[in-house]
Amino acid sequence: MTRFEPNLRIPGPTSLPPSVREAGARQMINHRGPEFAAMLGRIRDGMQPYFGTTQEISILSCAGTGGLEAAVVNVLSPGDRVLGVSIGAFGDRFAKIAETYGADVDRMSAEWGHAARADELRERLRGGAYRAVLLTHNETSTGVMNPIPELAAAIRAEAPDALILVDSVSALGAVPFQMDAWGVDVVVTGSQKAWMAAPGLAMVAASARAWAAMETARMPRFYLDLRKHRDSAANGETPWTPAVAVVFQVDEGLRLMAAEGAERVFARHRASAAATRAGLEALGFDLFADPADRSTTVTAAWIPEGLDWKAFNGEVKRRGVVLAGGQGKLAGRIFRVGHLGSVTVDEILGAIATLEAVSIEAGRPVQAGAGVAAAQVAALASIGAGASQPAVPAGA
Amino acid sequence: MTRFEPNLRIPGPTSLPPSVREAGARQMINHRGPEFAAMLGRIRDGMQPYFGTTQEISILSCAGTGGLEAAVVNVLSPGDRVLGVSIGAFGDRFAKIAETYGADVDRMSAEWGHAARADELRERLRGGAYRAVLLTHNETSTGVMNPIPELAAAIRAEAPDALILVDSVSALGAVPFQMDAWGVDVVVTGSQKAWMAAPGLAMVAASARAWAAMETARMPRFYLDLRKHRDSAANGETPWTPAVAVVFQVDEGLRLMAAEGAERVFARHRASAAATRAGLEALGFDLFADPADRSTTVTAAWIPEGLDWKAFNGEVKRRGVVLAGGQGKLAGRIFRVGHLGSVTVDEILGAIATLEAVSIEAGRPVQAGAGVAAAQVAALASIGAGASQPAVPAGA
Repeated sequence: MTRFEPNLRIPGPTSLPPSVREAGARQMINHRGPEFAAMLGRIRDGMQPYFGTTQEISILSCAGTGGLEAAVVNVLSPGDRVLGVSIGAFGDRFAKIAETYGADVDRMSAEWGHAARADELRERLRGGAYRAVLLTHNETSTGVMNPIPELAAAIRAEAPDALILVDSVSALGAVPFQMDAWGVDVVVTGSQKAWMAAPGLAMVAASARAWAAMETARMPRFYLDLRKHRDSAANGETPWTPAVAVVFQVDEGLRLMAAEGAERVFARHRASAAATRAGLEALGFDLFADPADRSTTVTAAWIPEGLDWKAFNGEVKRRGVVLAGGQGKLAGRIFRVGHLGSVTVDEILGAIATLEAVSIEAGRPVQAGAGVAAAQVAALASIGAGASQPAVPAGA
Repeated sequence: MTRFEPNLRIPGPTSLPPSVREAGARQMINHRGPEFAAMLGRIRDGMQPYFGTTQEISILSCAGTGGLEAAVVNVLSPGDRVLGVSIGAFGDRFAKIAETYGADVDRMSAEWGHAARADELRERLRGGAYRAVLLTHNETSTGVMNPIPELAAAIRAEAPDALILVDSVSALGAVPFQMDAWGVDVVVTGSQKAWMAAPGLAMVAASARAWAAMETARMPRFYLDLRKHRDSAANGETPWTPAVAVVFQVDEGLRLMAAEGAERVFARHRASAAATRAGLEALGFDLFADPADRSTTVTAAWIPEGLDWKAFNGEVKRRGVVLAGGQGKLAGRIFRVGHLGSVTVDEILGAIATLEAVSIEAGRPVQAGAGVAAAQVAALASIGAGASQPAVPAGA
């Protein structure tokens, strides 16, 4: 079937809504003038409820990985003991950054496909005086979402003084977060995920304890120095020339999110996730993540034994549905479907419809209509509408 | 006079041509797919002649300052002796970055408004075994351009093994550069300067000697690691999610530059610089920089004694001409006019016309038409056309 725009189902960059695209085409302005200052203020005010904080939010011009580096180097010193809780490639990366800057990093690694367990974390924390614990909120490589409130509570119980640094690059804005209430110290997110903008900005919030830690932290930092960002933010500026066009887009994305309302944003993500999982399973794809730990923003599925994935995915792509492959040790073994940012259930239905059609043509044992019907049923159940209605008969 | 779009005369971000603006509004694509890979390749091929190199060009998602940090941390180790040649705020920043990461930095500072002198540099190099010398090509804070070929030759003569790191953020693309021929080791530029795109990308090239230095350099680096960028570039990717919309814009900016031709790009910058200087001087503004050292991309002028700059500049701005103020110790003492990127002589004439009108209304001793006439004469002389014609009589 013809598509006039690809259905971009990678877990970021996400598709831009029309008005966000237009914002990216605006003419440049003086980044040290009042118009830019007002925009920075709006973004801070608009994001604070999503972070669940009253603290300043620093706008860094870099990828999410730069934001993770900022989280590490601003609050830690070489030799600090750090517990890197990893449930996948991005958790490994977070730990690697801390090691690169001289932290003494222990790792607590879950089997890929599973979330970190609070009881195991408590056990590990009893064993050592950690200065910081690194957590991944949403592990983009495996489609697993960690229970941050539980994990943060475990850390606060066993290691009250440890700094809790959270990579929420691919979760924040799509699911609720309460940084202040949960006692989280640094939270990092990225413009190209839930925020419906192009990549290029990382947003970082720090707790009062984290700001205090920066006064004595000795890892070297200049470009990613959060105190420089805080000082400039007081004047409505960034310390270095910001990615102005992406700032325009984040500002517009936040305007759309405010018009929709945070609860509806979260509900849309839950419904899209439910539709994706149900649709894939109805098409015979086994999901990678443990059912209890599945992410609201990205779903990973096993590539079935015997399926010529290259040919299959090539045909899916030719029809305009762009999936993500596996990363690291999962390359060639799983595929991933992003459902975050501007995602709608319509788009998920469209993606499932294409996977269904290609599956049938490839001779996989799939009943026509089964995938989209299951996805629709799951979406309706998720939003609490039509849950009691009978599903459209598969193949109808 | 009415303006429908501001005349943005700050030294970056620079105004975007229409097609570059449109490129910023494109829908996102998979940054790990063939379309993006082709674009990265085009940018490398298009930029190499401007760098004057056959080496890889790394596309970093960060501001120019992040690019300077990349230059330092990739090739140096803590304790390395470094000579920071500073002629202004950005030279000071470059040295400060090296210090932050533990280099043992000596400074050779020129009086602001002057370029670095090759003879003084040779003298300084005789005094110490430096691992690296930091040079600013164009000092945006003072409107001074350093003679990089001369300075590089001096370094090669006195300290053949020293690495030469050049901040060409606000020069490269606007003036000729021959990195390989001059023996320069690392060159940094930024998307929002000569390249006619929004801010968000720093482009960095390294010599064979610099690539070799990275193998043993011990300053910590992760996000800005150039070897990771080189390895990913071999697959047509960046190691972290790039600022895709800005990559679109740089690609389009380079297409426009190719259509114009590098020599014409350089001539346009020379003519715009000549027009700016002549126009400002005809309006009674003393230029800040030594006549021999004036920049082709930004001009700084003293704020005249007794002029209420805030009121004057407010009126200039109200009419749509956006100037830059002074930085650091020059705040409130100079103003700056950017003439790089998409700049045209028309725009400079328009800016001078506004400064002229506001000057007359402010009671400054300025003859109507004198500023624009002088600017036009200088532009014509610069491009070699009409140089023998009589100038339009001032006030005509």
